[in-house]
Amino acid sequence: MIVHTKRISLDMEAETGIQDITRQLSEAVRESGAKNGVVCVFMVGSTGAVTTMEYEPGLKKDIPRALEVFAPSDIPYEHHKTWGDSNGKSHVRSALIGCSLSVPFVDGIVVLGTWQQVVAMNLDTSARKREVVLQVLGE
Amino acid sequence: MIVHTKRISLDMEAETGIQDITRQLSEAVRESGAKNGVVCVFMVGSTGAVTTMEYEPGLKKDIPRALEVFAPSDIPYEHHKTWGDSNGKSHVRSALIGCSLSVPFVDGIVVLGTWQQVVAMNLDTSARKREVVLQVLGE
Amino acid sequence: MIVHTKRISLDMEAETGIQDITRQLSEAVRESGAKNGVVCVFMVGSTGAVTTMEYEPGLKKDIPRALEVFAPSDIPYEHHKTWGDSNGKSHVRSALIGCSLSVPFVDGIVVLGTWQQVVAMNLDTSARKREVVLQVLGE
Repeated sequence: MIVHTKRISLDMEAETGIQDITRQLSEAVRESGAKNGVVCVFMVGSTGAVTTMEYEPGLKKDIPRALEVFAPSDIPYEHHKTWGDSNGKSHVRSALIGCSLSVPFVDGIVVLGTWQQVVAMNLDTSARKREVVLQVLGE
Repeated sequence: MIVHTKRISLDMEAETGIQDITRQLSEAVRESGAKNGVVCVFMVGSTGAVTTMEYEPGLKKDIPRALEVFAPSDIPYEHHKTWGDSNGKSHVRSALIGCSLSVPFVDGIVVLGTWQQVVAMNLDTSARKREVVLQVLGE
Repeated sequence: MIVHTKRISLDMEAETGIQDITRQLSEAVRESGAKNGVVCVFMVGSTGAVTTMEYEPGLKKDIPRALEVFAPSDIPYEHHKTWGDSNGKSHVRSALIGCSLSVPFVDGIVVLGTWQQVVAMNLDTSARKREVVLQVLGE
């Protein structure tokens, strides 16, 4: 069994910065030497997220609009009372989108669709560095 | 270590077509010969999704209604400007529900609840074939 | 390859009871004897969920408010007609948040952020026991 860890550090924009990390998944698989298995993608921290999408500029605006529906910017959050923070919406969005996904690979190739990319999201209210851990399990 | 890949092709209805794929998970585990491990379930493409639910007709109507709240059918999407497409809502819904989940199995049996099924969703605006990849990792 | 299963049973509050299960993940990794790999966390049943969040009292109120947006308590659900149940919203919320996540571990330590915990949620309308399965894959 092969287990290979790749950590990636991303400089991300505030308020739903989205970056395509598909290339790094492919690199992680290649570096591991495994032919078949799964890459587990994990966003470190409670104001980020990972998912898959067609990575194009229109959807980078459409997705934040959807997040605004269930975790609006202009309502009070109990989270703000706990810490004096102002990013309650960021936490709620992160918990609902999720920080973890897994992608199979076969013969060294991840099984994504042609217009399907793996993306990292920074949901926080400020621009920041974010860390994503790619864990390859395979043989 | 055992890695076993099973690809399934589904003819799916438009606008939140939902199909129970639990049987195929159990088959994939049996075919693999592994006793204990995890099945990674991955929806190929950016207008589908996978999740778990009680697979019954009522919820097949309730879930689309919830999706309509955060990604309505009757608003303009920036995605439509990029490609001339009309399925912006489908992409947004896919990114928020997710295309990946993993289910443990123990002694050859997936650990789902009695009224919990693994389902594939077609969120696209047209009926279409969809592919799901089941990757079994275990021993 | 090491595969180790840990089942945890939780007494959970009704209506978005949330419990931190991070400690149990660390225990499962330690018990497995594996140094590097992934812990797959799976909520059994179709009215629960698992995710990551900063586990603090404010967000435990903010998250239920967000769930109320797309699956309100005060609307009729088709699910209620099928079984005479009254927990349609619980099922819809579970399907959208998800019952599965995977967390990598490196040198025996799960790669969570400092303020990021793994939590189980009971979305059902009554308090109940819930079961979560932790499946450790590694070496």
